[in-house]
Amino acid sequence: MRGRFLSIEGGEGAGKSTQAARLAEAIEARGVPVVVTREPGGSEGAEAIRALLMQGDVARWSAHGEALLFAAARADHVEKRIRPALESGSWVICDRFIDSTRAYQGAQGIDDAAILALHGFGSKGLLPDRTFLLTLPRNVGEARLAARGAANDRFETRDGTFHGSVAAIFDRIADTEPDRVRRIDAERAPEAVTATLIAELRDLLP
Amino acid sequence: MRGRFLSIEGGEGAGKSTQAARLAEAIEARGVPVVVTREPGGSEGAEAIRALLMQGDVARWSAHGEALLFAAARADHVEKRIRPALESGSWVICDRFIDSTRAYQGAQGIDDAAILALHGFGSKGLLPDRTFLLTLPRNVGEARLAARGAANDRFETRDGTFHGSVAAIFDRIADTEPDRVRRIDAERAPEAVTATLIAELRDLLP
Repeated sequence: MRGRFLSIEGGEGAGKSTQAARLAEAIEARGVPVVVTREPGGSEGAEAIRALLMQGDVARWSAHGEALLFAAARADHVEKRIRPALESGSWVICDRFIDSTRAYQGAQGIDDAAILALHGFGSKGLLPDRTFLLTLPRNVGEARLAARGAANDRFETRDGTFHGSVAAIFDRIADTEPDRVRRIDAERAPEAVTATLIAELRDLLP
Repeated sequence: MRGRFLSIEGGEGAGKSTQAARLAEAIEARGVPVVVTREPGGSEGAEAIRALLMQGDVARWSAHGEALLFAAARADHVEKRIRPALESGSWVICDRFIDSTRAYQGAQGIDDAAILALHGFGSKGLLPDRTFLLTLPRNVGEARLAARGAANDRFETRDGTFHGSVAAIFDRIADTEPDRVRRIDAERAPEAVTATLIAELRDLLP
């Protein structure tokens, strides 16, 4: 039986990678193998593209060039890692996927339909079975990032207006695709967030 | 006045870079500044993508991923180098451009309309004012490559059927767009080929 594909989305500091690990543990405890991965990257070729995307000046790539690079990285990740895992029966939890491209490149003015068209071309339009959008106030996310001393990458150095647009697009996606995308309050303790994720997977878990 | 954009296409060993340099010299002799460039690459970002494209195993990228990477590299090259040069009044001669992607990715089964759609997205569909398709029998090109001891890249290691398909697509493009694309017999001496290129530019040269 094909595994389920889950993605975790949201701004930096929302706890995506923590929740990916905790959720994997909870699902594996039910006897289901889980692959945890993240984007951009997740496969050898995609990691090489990730290095181009995350380093350098904020203006290194145009918004259109950036969208093409994300689509190329995702195509490699889907083909080499995600699809084979799902076909072998593993579940896959991905820290960021297509909705991050829709939000971050959309906030730079790239049309949502064009981003989905690139995804259709590169990855046959693969969508997660369920997506968790971890939400928290921007200042809380920033404080968490500062507390862990995280270096800013090309995206995090952008201004508040940009991050406001990103959050608005994530919200719109959640409003438009309520069955796939579930909004999760990520300001709570990690244990409480994980419990909500599990509850929101009731219909998919064996 | 905006400069003219020329591309030179054809298989390996056809003399594209030699003719690009000779043609630039002939145009500059008429008092017109010329930028000579090549793809994949031609700008800092595009050269970084070129390294990903040309190195590694022949199966490193899927055909779709490869098409996205070429489109990303071209978007950067067009934005950072080609358009600024044309707008400053320089002519630009590019060794390979969109028709190479149509031929090499098309030969791997990627739909021509999809390739042109990616080009529309990344580079606003910029087409050369004139394209020279240098033609010569495959065995002549191979002998020339062997004579200069050129190392094979990811594309040149493919088999004869692949290169036959590439040539067939180049031919179809030349048949379909006869005003833009001129077929040039490249089996002759370099001087004779350059003379033909100049003759085929009569309507564009000042």
